[in-house]
Amino acid sequence: NAHHIAVIPDDGIGKEVVPEGLRVLKTVSEKFDCAFAFDHFDFASCDYYLKHGQMMPDDWKALLGDHDAIFFGAVGWPDTVPDHISLWGSLIQFRREFDQYVNLRAARLMPGVSSPLANRGPGDIDFMIVRENTEGEYSSIGGKIFPGTEREVVMQETVMTRTGVDRILRFAFDLAQRREKKHLTSATKSNGISITMPYWDERVEAMAANFPDVRWDKYHIDILAAHFVQHPDWFDVVVASNLFGDILSDLGPACTGTIGIAPAGNINPEREFPSLFEPVHGSAPDIAGHGIANPVEQIWAAAMMLDHLGERDAAAAVVSAIEAVLAEPQYRTPDLGGPAKTSECTEAICRALRDI
Amino acid sequence: NAHHIAVIPDDGIGKEVVPEGLRVLKTVSEKFDCAFAFDHFDFASCDYYLKHGQMMPDDWKALLGDHDAIFFGAVGWPDTVPDHISLWGSLIQFRREFDQYVNLRAARLMPGVSSPLANRGPGDIDFMIVRENTEGEYSSIGGKIFPGTEREVVMQETVMTRTGVDRILRFAFDLAQRREKKHLTSATKSNGISITMPYWDERVEAMAANFPDVRWDKYHIDILAAHFVQHPDWFDVVVASNLFGDILSDLGPACTGTIGIAPAGNINPEREFPSLFEPVHGSAPDIAGHGIANPVEQIWAAAMMLDHLGERDAAAAVVSAIEAVLAEPQYRTPDLGGPAKTSECTEAICRALRDI
Ligand SMILES: CC(C)[C@H](C(=O)O)[C@@H](O)C(=O)O
Ligand SMILES: CC(C)[C@H](C(=O)O)[C@@H](O)C(=O)O
Repeated sequence: NAHHIAVIPDDGIGKEVVPEGLRVLKTVSEKFDCAFAFDHFDFASCDYYLKHGQMMPDDWKALLGDHDAIFFGAVGWPDTVPDHISLWGSLIQFRREFDQYVNLRAARLMPGVSSPLANRGPGDIDFMIVRENTEGEYSSIGGKIFPGTEREVVMQETVMTRTGVDRILRFAFDLAQRREKKHLTSATKSNGISITMPYWDERVEAMAANFPDVRWDKYHIDILAAHFVQHPDWFDVVVASNLFGDILSDLGPACTGTIGIAPAGNINPEREFPSLFEPVHGSAPDIAGHGIANPVEQIWAAAMMLDHLGERDAAAAVVSAIEAVLAEPQYRTPDLGGPAKTSECTEAICRALRDI
Repeated sequence: NAHHIAVIPDDGIGKEVVPEGLRVLKTVSEKFDCAFAFDHFDFASCDYYLKHGQMMPDDWKALLGDHDAIFFGAVGWPDTVPDHISLWGSLIQFRREFDQYVNLRAARLMPGVSSPLANRGPGDIDFMIVRENTEGEYSSIGGKIFPGTEREVVMQETVMTRTGVDRILRFAFDLAQRREKKHLTSATKSNGISITMPYWDERVEAMAANFPDVRWDKYHIDILAAHFVQHPDWFDVVVASNLFGDILSDLGPACTGTIGIAPAGNINPEREFPSLFEPVHGSAPDIAGHGIANPVEQIWAAAMMLDHLGERDAAAAVVSAIEAVLAEPQYRTPDLGGPAKTSECTEAICRALRDI
């Protein structure tokens, strides 16, 4: 029974690293008992936008909706199409229309990647950030009164629903329960954001009652950001609202030096709709076309996708293969100070995978 | 012409370090041509709350309103009074009622303070964070519908006014203009928070036109937080909304290792109302009463206050004295791994100040 994957390479280095991810998936299918069927799409790219005046065809939902997952490259080419068109016309559409209410990222010290933090080595930092991905601070409700005058006032609403909050908390507690440390940290700001955040805290407390074996705590976002830098070893699973999660999902990987290496999953856990797995780096116009882009993030995104598809052993094997290869200086790409081409790094990962 | 200062030591170690700050101000008045008149108040403390059932007397505005500044200790004693009462009943009142619309903090590598970042030394990081302190995400407008049911929805409004945004930007650009690097960075999230944040960007652009000699740029808050960790040397003055500023003002000092050492100013630049200068550490119940609290933050708060009062040379001298003393291991308090008592550290700073 093959997993049906929609492949969308998008722009820039997305076109170079997505095929590398597919090579690794091919190796996975040879080694593990699983199969994939790939459908390739050229939309959700700036090229497509320039030709059609929109990022995606009108029937994109029908075209993609039956797939088990979307394997995504990097969208955006700011020289030709502004980000608010390219991103809101693709990524944000998927998150909302396919109800990908979980945004999942890893903060993990990897061998060969130098962390900006002093005295931390591989194994010292290893946590996941679970971000609410559909509501909260990203509502588009609001507006302006007295525009263009001194009395101008602009308002925007944060919206939290019981459904929206509870389902992300359940996912996060559930993830914590499956991990060794069984520890969940909630990001709040109930001492300042005095209506929505106390509500968030209340729901965390209620959800915790269903997971008596998970130890949990909470920190205000200001001191939590500080702790990411000072005590990154304190964390296991961190759950946060859309905005706080956005910040923490860049800050965590920044602390481990993996900001362009740790991918994101945009997940609909119930699999009612396809989930989307993407590297977080941009389309990198400066290096696109030179065959030197680092393929690790796209390959790690493939691992996250495998995990979501229930192929847990294969997922863990891909991450181990990445770690083994990053430990070898000659297979690192130039962004990590190494000499390897994109394809050489991928080949090494495929070899490591076969040997596991 | 003496500066009239209201002194409010509040709780815990506040009672120990505020007198140390006053000793330094006495030394300042001996060395520089300036004088202070101090009035002491016992409210805005949890002791006061336990006696009177409120944090401050009804006429607090009249009692404090004529002073040039408020020299504040540390409020809060969570064992007896919940934070939302002690903080919202004092600090947040001052900010709003005295229109202290600027919250100012420093992120500066100091000698003797170890930064969690690798390979950074004194002089490498030195920037200021200017936070909007009265509106934005901290509005208390909003509420809940269908409480206690599955349909529960909670909303909270972010409010930005032209007046509120423009005045904080003017303060920040003005500060940048007075510094050597003349560089301003604005924190935004206009790619996600699609109504208030594009407005913020628009006002930054308009204000920049008045400061042609200030170089400016902007980053989305997620990547900006990452840059604080990866490239703290990029920044000079960072301006941000209330919530983003709250996060960055803890993250910046965390990166320099000075999170309990760099104070905050809550400033009304026009001096229509008194401004408030405070350490940011809490009341530290665990060490209160032992004479070992680090007085540096309170003394640094005094320096910030001097700067606001127009005593710029004295302010700079106090910061230099702090730096000179922190460079000597024997004058560091236990939190910095040293053997010094609170009073020994202060005496050394007073001596250094006399010798400057
Ligand atoms: C106590 C809290 C409301 C406050 C804030 O968020 O403003 C604190 O974090 C600060 O930065 O002074
Ligand atoms: C592009 C932007 C809207 C997006 C977000 O804030 O969600 C990005 O930062 C991300 O994290 O995927």
